[in-house]
Amino acid sequence: MSAKSKFLGKDFLLHCEAAVNLYHNHAAPKAIVDYHNHLSPKEIAENKQFTNLTEIWLDGDHYKWRAMRINGVNEKYCTGNASPEEKFMKWAETVPHTMRNPLYHWTHLELKRYFGIDRVLNAESAKSIYDECSAKLQTKEFRVQPLLKRMHVEVVCTTDDPCDDLAYHISHTEAGSPGAKMLPTFRPDKAYAFEDISAYNAYIKKLSEASIVEISSLADLLKALENRVDFFAKNGCRACDHGLEILPYAELSHTEAASLFEKVLKGTTLNTLEIMGLRSFVLTHLCRLYHGKGWAQQFHLGALRNNNSRMKRTLGADAGFDSIGDFPQASSMSKFFDRLDSDNQLTKTIIYNLNPADNELFATMIGNFNDGSSPGKIQWGSGWWFLDQKDGMEKQINTLSNMGLLSRFIGMITDSRSFLSFPRHEYFRRILCNVIGTDIEKGELPNDMPLIGKMVEDICYHNAKNYMDL
Amino acid sequence: MSAKSKFLGKDFLLHCEAAVNLYHNHAAPKAIVDYHNHLSPKEIAENKQFTNLTEIWLDGDHYKWRAMRINGVNEKYCTGNASPEEKFMKWAETVPHTMRNPLYHWTHLELKRYFGIDRVLNAESAKSIYDECSAKLQTKEFRVQPLLKRMHVEVVCTTDDPCDDLAYHISHTEAGSPGAKMLPTFRPDKAYAFEDISAYNAYIKKLSEASIVEISSLADLLKALENRVDFFAKNGCRACDHGLEILPYAELSHTEAASLFEKVLKGTTLNTLEIMGLRSFVLTHLCRLYHGKGWAQQFHLGALRNNNSRMKRTLGADAGFDSIGDFPQASSMSKFFDRLDSDNQLTKTIIYNLNPADNELFATMIGNFNDGSSPGKIQWGSGWWFLDQKDGMEKQINTLSNMGLLSRFIGMITDSRSFLSFPRHEYFRRILCNVIGTDIEKGELPNDMPLIGKMVEDICYHNAKNYMDL
Amino acid sequence: MSAKSKFLGKDFLLHCEAAVNLYHNHAAPKAIVDYHNHLSPKEIAENKQFTNLTEIWLDGDHYKWRAMRINGVNEKYCTGNASPEEKFMKWAETVPHTMRNPLYHWTHLELKRYFGIDRVLNAESAKSIYDECSAKLQTKEFRVQPLLKRMHVEVVCTTDDPCDDLAYHISHTEAGSPGAKMLPTFRPDKAYAFEDISAYNAYIKKLSEASIVEISSLADLLKALENRVDFFAKNGCRACDHGLEILPYAELSHTEAASLFEKVLKGTTLNTLEIMGLRSFVLTHLCRLYHGKGWAQQFHLGALRNNNSRMKRTLGADAGFDSIGDFPQASSMSKFFDRLDSDNQLTKTIIYNLNPADNELFATMIGNFNDGSSPGKIQWGSGWWFLDQKDGMEKQINTLSNMGLLSRFIGMITDSRSFLSFPRHEYFRRILCNVIGTDIEKGELPNDMPLIGKMVEDICYHNAKNYMDL
Repeated sequence: MSAKSKFLGKDFLLHCEAAVNLYHNHAAPKAIVDYHNHLSPKEIAENKQFTNLTEIWLDGDHYKWRAMRINGVNEKYCTGNASPEEKFMKWAETVPHTMRNPLYHWTHLELKRYFGIDRVLNAESAKSIYDECSAKLQTKEFRVQPLLKRMHVEVVCTTDDPCDDLAYHISHTEAGSPGAKMLPTFRPDKAYAFEDISAYNAYIKKLSEASIVEISSLADLLKALENRVDFFAKNGCRACDHGLEILPYAELSHTEAASLFEKVLKGTTLNTLEIMGLRSFVLTHLCRLYHGKGWAQQFHLGALRNNNSRMKRTLGADAGFDSIGDFPQASSMSKFFDRLDSDNQLTKTIIYNLNPADNELFATMIGNFNDGSSPGKIQWGSGWWFLDQKDGMEKQINTLSNMGLLSRFIGMITDSRSFLSFPRHEYFRRILCNVIGTDIEKGELPNDMPLIGKMVEDICYHNAKNYMDL
Repeated sequence: MSAKSKFLGKDFLLHCEAAVNLYHNHAAPKAIVDYHNHLSPKEIAENKQFTNLTEIWLDGDHYKWRAMRINGVNEKYCTGNASPEEKFMKWAETVPHTMRNPLYHWTHLELKRYFGIDRVLNAESAKSIYDECSAKLQTKEFRVQPLLKRMHVEVVCTTDDPCDDLAYHISHTEAGSPGAKMLPTFRPDKAYAFEDISAYNAYIKKLSEASIVEISSLADLLKALENRVDFFAKNGCRACDHGLEILPYAELSHTEAASLFEKVLKGTTLNTLEIMGLRSFVLTHLCRLYHGKGWAQQFHLGALRNNNSRMKRTLGADAGFDSIGDFPQASSMSKFFDRLDSDNQLTKTIIYNLNPADNELFATMIGNFNDGSSPGKIQWGSGWWFLDQKDGMEKQINTLSNMGLLSRFIGMITDSRSFLSFPRHEYFRRILCNVIGTDIEKGELPNDMPLIGKMVEDICYHNAKNYMDL
Repeated sequence: MSAKSKFLGKDFLLHCEAAVNLYHNHAAPKAIVDYHNHLSPKEIAENKQFTNLTEIWLDGDHYKWRAMRINGVNEKYCTGNASPEEKFMKWAETVPHTMRNPLYHWTHLELKRYFGIDRVLNAESAKSIYDECSAKLQTKEFRVQPLLKRMHVEVVCTTDDPCDDLAYHISHTEAGSPGAKMLPTFRPDKAYAFEDISAYNAYIKKLSEASIVEISSLADLLKALENRVDFFAKNGCRACDHGLEILPYAELSHTEAASLFEKVLKGTTLNTLEIMGLRSFVLTHLCRLYHGKGWAQQFHLGALRNNNSRMKRTLGADAGFDSIGDFPQASSMSKFFDRLDSDNQLTKTIIYNLNPADNELFATMIGNFNDGSSPGKIQWGSGWWFLDQKDGMEKQINTLSNMGLLSRFIGMITDSRSFLSFPRHEYFRRILCNVIGTDIEKGELPNDMPLIGKMVEDICYHNAKNYMDL
């Protein structure tokens, strides 16, 4: 075995000379534009100090909980009342069982890049690693802002509810954006979550307060949302984001939609068809607002959420009980975008699929609405959630290459809740460079490093920056 | 070309040093736990002697018939009245046309491992191979029990109808389990096959006799099934199995279900929705019984069966006219398991998909119900039927790795009707070791052979043994 | 980097000795049987001379337009009124952005094989390449017939409407088939396009004239179609082709279908279910006619067409705004074929899928109806449209290998509108040889070059020729 192929070594994942060259000379030097994640604006603005490794690494990480449960670890050590150190020990015992799962690479990359740990994490090494990292976390170099800086993060776009007052975004900007620039992203999922009528009406009350618009009709709702879109835009927002099973298409008049919304306000439960109809109406209206602002609209499609109702009752959503759905996507999505495009109101758009069986569908859908107005106007987003791993990324890169223009791809995002997730950009870049480098090595691309190096730099940095107008 | 890469050589399918090491030192020495197959209990218990190679190898093998038909071979030589030797000659002529199909590897592995044949099978070699193997089959070393022993088969779990009296299982156990331990598997597909009402009522009569329960209501049916579950459990059964297009979910009260069942008993044909509803009810009840026994429940999902009605009329089911369906799987399966989980009555579960487009759906579905009660409680089964080949296995191994914990995988089964199919375990093990070994070689896993060797041993043997409580 | 792996070098895409050997000794020498394309019979018969590179290469090529639009090129330079040279410049600027898309390989293979251009096409080289190629195009060696000859094209099967008088086919045959033999293919999509009633009735008028059958009932329609099938058969037609979302199955009596058709003739719009029903009826009738002629029937399934209605209004169909759908395919297709098979009226059949998520479904569907009457009677067609690229072909080859008999595959077609597309056969052959050669090199196939070389020759040439009775 050569030194080059050492686990997590300098040339980790780079299996030929061209890949090594592309990565070290073109990809690695570029700063990070993380245009979609779930980081806490408060923790960034307040430059949070973490107490121990469990707090920054395990708390809130449903990827790790899920692996621990599969490994037979009791809930007490995932989300329960075990001590931080006990939880960490259970995680450490699980780590060797995650070999070949992205968690195994992420874990060791994160320990190495942030804490300089070169040892493998397992039951034996757990205590010393926990102590060493927890001690470091208590120094000022390990507060949130220096962590971002160390990772060369230039911008983060957080994910925010329309009701959010963006106080942390504002104060962080006023403070000169220490660590990294932070922009909000408009995520109005609750504004069309008509399934749970009482939760919906509670949300409407909140939205009414945030927008200072009394909401007693559909027109009011749309006005309130417009108010919030304006507010977000004023505060640096460049993008929105939506989590949906499918992009809903229906042909409802304003009158029909308004009458459904009246039912909602009265607390009447809608049937599935009515929900889809009203959601399609509201979402289409939002998309027209986004177009007015020149935002990039993002759609994360295809998750089947909250499958385990027993755990949902205890832990709520986003606790590791979601999976990949098989919803029909093509026809409805096509009509949804076509309606906007027909009026010239289709703004820049990024679609993300969760089921890789839809890769080619998504990769070709974007080509239907790329109208030559700007390069790569409609994007197929990088491998998301369960697909955010080597195989998932390679498939996305290859399918996008074959069915679109890889060179116009806006690349990677962490989509993460954790400040320790930024090595995922490194991971993506190594994979990208290896895929492209291998093509050069095999003579399937010309051996033109300036040309191809530029393509790599674009995908890693410039495309996203230009696309998001940063 | 190196000696190493010789066709079917010692290091067949093992393309790096780490793979070679893992296979020969960790995988190969392990015995076989074949926890799901379709072997004949009678032939095992009676230690059957076969007369010729056609009888043990071609008769009943719909994989081979299908290949022969594609190759333009007349039905006479597949299932018809040609002589055993004539049939063999037609198969032998077809073999060179199966290159790159798993049949080509299986064929030669089976000839080599059982009969020591090192030649390639084709029209020229056919006669001498037929004669040599048929002669061997008439010796006592080639009766069924020594064949199992030679392949290091420790346990076989056969597939049995609830009406079966398990006489061969009982006598084989009483005889000290010569050759290999043999356990029954409860396969009650006929108990909810409401599509063909007259066949169903004939089956109900049989079930009534087997259980000594007169079945004149749904309650009676459930009682009869419980009786048979008890009987199977008493006779060593550890698992059940079901063949379904989808896992049916419906919310039917006992009263509603009972009234549908009354229609069935009266010979009234149910519509599709009624069939799904009643099937869901009966199957859910069965699953609760399985949970009571601590069984592992298996679901083989997604086959589109009996596509050729002309051949169905002549040959019946399972004759090589089935294929891969594209049924929506996720939502119904999620609700089916969630209902059981909500009452804490979801037992150990293995789901198998036939359409590889559902790989990721299945790989992530299992994570929704792995609750930390035991490692790998919910399993995604190994590549099945059309997916039981190198590419299918690699995809299953890789997807399971990326979306779950490969280390907790219970591994391979033959799912076969043939006593010559056990080299499929060798085939799987070589593929597994090559996949993992390649990762080591590339530095994508640490070069820690004791750790990774143990993982290989677990997947090849220990996990299944523990899971099935053997 | 070795000389062997030079971009577009002699051993392009051939990554081992066995692959090199198979390609140069077995695949490359074989002539081309292009049994499905969209070439212009007129241009072939008249031996068209092109004026410049844009005319022969960009005009009508929606693959290139689509790439240009993604790259931010204005419609003026795709389908608009820019000059040929301006259009070419925009295409040339786009080419470096197509790296890893099949367009990049196709572009350079085509420049090299037809025009001897060895330089990479980009903004800098554009002018000189344009001038050099346009000059050559004005010589008689670059008329259509010599171009076909240079590429060793033996037969082309064009795609023709039932109303076509086949005048060019007839005159080309009478002239001794200069360049290549040219046969028509019967493509009756318009005869069951009931979605647009007024367009449909206009077509019926045309069909009535072509067949000299007054169409005032369903029986008349079927008679008119039979007339055209006879006419095509008389003029060398060996195959038909159909573009459909799915193979529609419905159980309609002649009376029911006839009454729907009456509505159509009266200009009444049918609903979706009625359209499917009537289409299924007409198509089934056509399939029985095809069986009578012994034709090969082709079905191209799964495209989601005309997604962009704004561009549809401007440019019409086939302008680069189609993509991959996710229609349920299995059940309906199975029943459609089974009905024909039940009466022994299922003729030779080739099915092509556009969504690769259906690869395994299609690969196994064909096995249901291969009845031993002739080798490879039912075929799964080679990677089509968006799948006509290296990854798509490799997947098709591998899945077909694993689930069927690769050796019986009838291989590649260009499916192209361009006379410069024939290097796609070379591309396919290199990929095929590399896939198979790699297996030999790894010891996964025996090192028997005569045997495997013959398989390659069959797939590249003989199988198609025999299948199409050429």
